[in-house]
Amino acid sequence: MSLHPAVAACRRGVRSVLSGLEPGDAVVVACSGGADSLALTSATVFEGHRQGLRVVGATVDHGLQPGSADQAARVVAQLVGLGVDETATVRVEVVGDGRGPEAAARQARYDVLEQLRERLGAALVLLGHTRDDQAETVLLGLTRGSGPRSLAGMRRAFDHYARPLLDVTRDDTVTACQVEGLVPWDDPHNDDPGYTRVRVRRTVLPLLEEQLGPGVAATLARTADQVRDDVEALDALARTAYDDLRAEGDGIALRRLHDLYRAVASRVLRLAALDAGAIDSELFHVHVRALVDLAAGDLHGEVQLPGHVTAYRDRDRLLFRRTAVSS
Amino acid sequence: MSLHPAVAACRRGVRSVLSGLEPGDAVVVACSGGADSLALTSATVFEGHRQGLRVVGATVDHGLQPGSADQAARVVAQLVGLGVDETATVRVEVVGDGRGPEAAARQARYDVLEQLRERLGAALVLLGHTRDDQAETVLLGLTRGSGPRSLAGMRRAFDHYARPLLDVTRDDTVTACQVEGLVPWDDPHNDDPGYTRVRVRRTVLPLLEEQLGPGVAATLARTADQVRDDVEALDALARTAYDDLRAEGDGIALRRLHDLYRAVASRVLRLAALDAGAIDSELFHVHVRALVDLAAGDLHGEVQLPGHVTAYRDRDRLLFRRTAVSS
Repeated sequence: MSLHPAVAACRRGVRSVLSGLEPGDAVVVACSGGADSLALTSATVFEGHRQGLRVVGATVDHGLQPGSADQAARVVAQLVGLGVDETATVRVEVVGDGRGPEAAARQARYDVLEQLRERLGAALVLLGHTRDDQAETVLLGLTRGSGPRSLAGMRRAFDHYARPLLDVTRDDTVTACQVEGLVPWDDPHNDDPGYTRVRVRRTVLPLLEEQLGPGVAATLARTADQVRDDVEALDALARTAYDDLRAEGDGIALRRLHDLYRAVASRVLRLAALDAGAIDSELFHVHVRALVDLAAGDLHGEVQLPGHVTAYRDRDRLLFRRTAVSS
Repeated sequence: MSLHPAVAACRRGVRSVLSGLEPGDAVVVACSGGADSLALTSATVFEGHRQGLRVVGATVDHGLQPGSADQAARVVAQLVGLGVDETATVRVEVVGDGRGPEAAARQARYDVLEQLRERLGAALVLLGHTRDDQAETVLLGLTRGSGPRSLAGMRRAFDHYARPLLDVTRDDTVTACQVEGLVPWDDPHNDDPGYTRVRVRRTVLPLLEEQLGPGVAATLARTADQVRDDVEALDALARTAYDDLRAEGDGIALRRLHDLYRAVASRVLRLAALDAGAIDSELFHVHVRALVDLAAGDLHGEVQLPGHVTAYRDRDRLLFRRTAVSS
């Protein structure tokens, strides 16, 4: 019996991320019961066992919906059916942190997965994001206006986490489930147009494909890979340049800054502002651009930054001061 | 009488690009008679004359439509009414070069504008692209899949050309014309959904604004500025690295390549492939990625590149050879 291409695509993705592991290592697969993560789990059981790995299927009970515990139990049964060596159900408490419910739920999910990974001593946690998720992330990033970083999408791997299906389409994960007789759960959140991501998936991407030609999702995902490489290189260059500049005294020597490429100089100024106490999540491009203009002499006076930080020029240096806040 | 904000926005953009010119210098404004370029011309006459510049209004007769000569004559009359010092009508012959009619028309337009600029000894040619044009360019680039470069949009300035209205919206140029009593010409091409750009303008961008929130066009344009800075820095770094590597002998020393950031290394490999005779317009990301994999040892054998160029490894070097083509 020949292997179905959709199943082969999932296994290929998993194989490449498992290649560095040793027999006996544990790998955790995060599984919601949706098509993406079921297909991922199945591929991981197959590839993991071939390599002598211990495969742990983990499901997260968000406790957000009535019946979420039942759903978690159903996923556990599926994980057992798929032949994982161990299952784990982790319950999360989502605590609002001011960044919205989606961000809070995501953070909570990573926190419990990380606790589980440490407890199991697992080498890797696999996440089921597909190429379509990546395209959606890039489009969402475009609308947030946080610059190249927002176009970089999701990383293929970070710390102990990897996303083996970033080159696999959602359609392929659905097909892989059908071929393997797995019945995915449809998360009702995936149909709620109250979520921007759902509107991107249901309305925006299909219209882009219709108006601009097929392959837009693939292009967005491919572009994200390249932008991420670019951003990583420039962030690293800026970090090195900033460390050098900082070693020379307070603030930034403008003469040295002018020798840097604009892309590096603006990142150096951002790092300096953060070091001075500016608030990362509120420091926007408009602030960094004002710092660039101040450094270039195109802007005079002072620049106010979120976090009660003021940037100013003193002869040939750009300096920062923290403003006292009366309570 | 206070200045209308839309007129002020156009003038501000023009003022900043004219700031380096000297009294007596000539500046050419390319004017199609559309709202964007009429507003640009008006602002250039105002700001240019304040600075003692000679303002030349130029219109291009594409000869593509019946009555195009009448349209050119109408624009010339408007240019005179706006108070330019001199008008010029340049006729272009659009010759297909295999890149499609839009690209051919654009190239022909630049060619005749450049001839005009040289003949007049003009310091600068101003182009009327707005922030909306920039957003459309970024979206079009996304669909072409040529990576970060495609997201960089149009440059604010290059050689003797500048785009003073890249921070001004199309709505503002329309308003500026109304306020100043100018009657713009509506190019029928702007309504032809056979053009991808028209579909982006009429359908895609409005839907993005509706589904993802207002401000998408502004965000796309802002992101383009940052991506362009990033791409310029990395291209320059790669050029320097490549020149260093090339000085060491044939091909690329892999050990040296591994010391570079991926974003730089992949650009170095692209430059090397072009130098070996690969065809620029056909050298896609998939080829460069194959070169990266070959260099990293993740891919074995040879990589075929467009232009009958073959890349291969010879011990610690990546080499290229041109394949003989039988005629």
